[in-house]
Amino acid sequence: MKRIGIAGATGLVGETLLRLLEASPHPVEELRLFASSRSAGTRLAFRDKELAVAELSVDGFRGLDLAFFCLENELARKFVPQVSKLCPVIDKSSEFRLKEGVPLVVPEVNPQALKGHANIIANPNCTTIPLVVALFPLHVRFGLKQVTVTSLQSVSGAGLQALAQLYYETEFLALRRPPDSEGSPFKLPIADNLLPQIGAFDQAGHSGEENKLIHETRKILGLPDLLINATCVRVPITIGHSLAVTCRFGQRVKPKEANAVLKDAAGVVLYVGERFATPLDCRSNDMVYVSRVRPGAAPDELNLWVLTDNLRKGAALNALQIAERLFSDKSEAL
Amino acid sequence: MKRIGIAGATGLVGETLLRLLEASPHPVEELRLFASSRSAGTRLAFRDKELAVAELSVDGFRGLDLAFFCLENELARKFVPQVSKLCPVIDKSSEFRLKEGVPLVVPEVNPQALKGHANIIANPNCTTIPLVVALFPLHVRFGLKQVTVTSLQSVSGAGLQALAQLYYETEFLALRRPPDSEGSPFKLPIADNLLPQIGAFDQAGHSGEENKLIHETRKILGLPDLLINATCVRVPITIGHSLAVTCRFGQRVKPKEANAVLKDAAGVVLYVGERFATPLDCRSNDMVYVSRVRPGAAPDELNLWVLTDNLRKGAALNALQIAERLFSDKSEAL
Repeated sequence: MKRIGIAGATGLVGETLLRLLEASPHPVEELRLFASSRSAGTRLAFRDKELAVAELSVDGFRGLDLAFFCLENELARKFVPQVSKLCPVIDKSSEFRLKEGVPLVVPEVNPQALKGHANIIANPNCTTIPLVVALFPLHVRFGLKQVTVTSLQSVSGAGLQALAQLYYETEFLALRRPPDSEGSPFKLPIADNLLPQIGAFDQAGHSGEENKLIHETRKILGLPDLLINATCVRVPITIGHSLAVTCRFGQRVKPKEANAVLKDAAGVVLYVGERFATPLDCRSNDMVYVSRVRPGAAPDELNLWVLTDNLRKGAALNALQIAERLFSDKSEAL
Repeated sequence: MKRIGIAGATGLVGETLLRLLEASPHPVEELRLFASSRSAGTRLAFRDKELAVAELSVDGFRGLDLAFFCLENELARKFVPQVSKLCPVIDKSSEFRLKEGVPLVVPEVNPQALKGHANIIANPNCTTIPLVVALFPLHVRFGLKQVTVTSLQSVSGAGLQALAQLYYETEFLALRRPPDSEGSPFKLPIADNLLPQIGAFDQAGHSGEENKLIHETRKILGLPDLLINATCVRVPITIGHSLAVTCRFGQRVKPKEANAVLKDAAGVVLYVGERFATPLDCRSNDMVYVSRVRPGAAPDELNLWVLTDNLRKGAALNALQIAERLFSDKSEAL
């Protein structure tokens, strides 16, 4: 992992990845940045250099050890398969996540899935990642039977333009005026509002985000028949995705027993007692926060309040951790 | 219902009640407004008059037909029992809600509970009301077995000072600065944040609001053993409480069948297909909105997205509807 390419470097996840890589101890011999034609030409700082962002092309990746793709599905579909013939690609889009033979990886949970990869590794959805980090150690110990989750997802998860829209509408709210939401990437006002739709609805009425959360969780945990139910809501905050999770296990589980497991779980910060985590706690931070571990309605049920920085552990950091795992498995220098 | 008193007339719920009464067709011969000593002396408009707000006292209610109490528990505890010796009291606090012999009423659901009341009638929590309005018709038809709910509650539910704090912090957010939250009624910043605690935690870790939702729902539906699980979260919006609800019934239920029931349900506006309701839809509006009726993880489970204006149907409007029912039952003129 010495010669690296980042496709989508000017987006929120791409830029977060750039900053994480910059702050990491990894020597980076060469870094190439790419974006769609709209953003090509931008210059971005990295350590002691300033790098020009090139227009995305397959040839641009020749000679690299690794490519990170932080682009939407359409561009991923077009470029990832070709670039993967040149070097391993860690892809943030949802395009390949559920494909047979494509590892979908959260390093704390299923690093073994990387074995025998075919140069495309998928990075899960920003809501799936914190969910499985919290659920996996509990599943190993108690046997997960059913999960009901409501996600409260920040606006940065919808990208730069969406975040700018939230700030813009917030100016109106600060002035006690109804926001102008013309030209918004959202169909409805997002400031002073909640949007219970993220992604297109399927025939049954589940949103795209809900289906991602359901199917990705099953794949990562290796539980294809897990009963799992999701409601995903966009909330007017900038960063941090929170999850209200109710789990049913194959046995009675006391919060104390769950806490004993979560205390030592990889990637988890656990708060016990009356302390809880809020989106403010997780920003610019690497961890998945778990708090409010408490009984559910039945003795085999537990509630958890789970959150993480959706741009970091929910996206860029998880991709970087996959890369680290990929290269350490090959015994190459990081 | 000709001579009416409102205690707590200067609060958000009291003032909402005043406006609803003003706009109602009910003749009001006499209206007396009361508040704690802090707000006494304020003058409030009502129809063609301006009324002075008196300091709360038991004697102030002599000769009235009905009293609305829109005050917190401490003042309710002190005054409601004494005032109820003079006239019926509809009380918004949680003080008497779970007391044996005190009707806890949502007119669309359990108006029969008013029979034989002893002059104290409790108005349920602002989150309980929309939940039971949506659940009751489904329960009657399909038999409710279990409910899992995550509430996303607006800041007006925490009162005037909390709402002012949200606006204040929003000014910082509009300027892209971290908010100043010193002296806030919340322990943590509320703008750009989510607070998964409403009310004090009990030993098991459930918040006061979660316990209200659980126990009030059981009492109103007459299902003391209903399995019900709640996570209540304060979100940075001004008005409108939303609920992500998953219900399990005693039989398979298709969304289509549930929609057929909800379409004609009292107090409900149902959206079917891809249309959904957001907090913006419910403001200054009398209805409980139900949308996103869709399958759960198992065939006996359904998801609903439920919301209402927490100051109106969630509080003041429900109180006024209780009053209307109370006096129509007595065959008195409204």
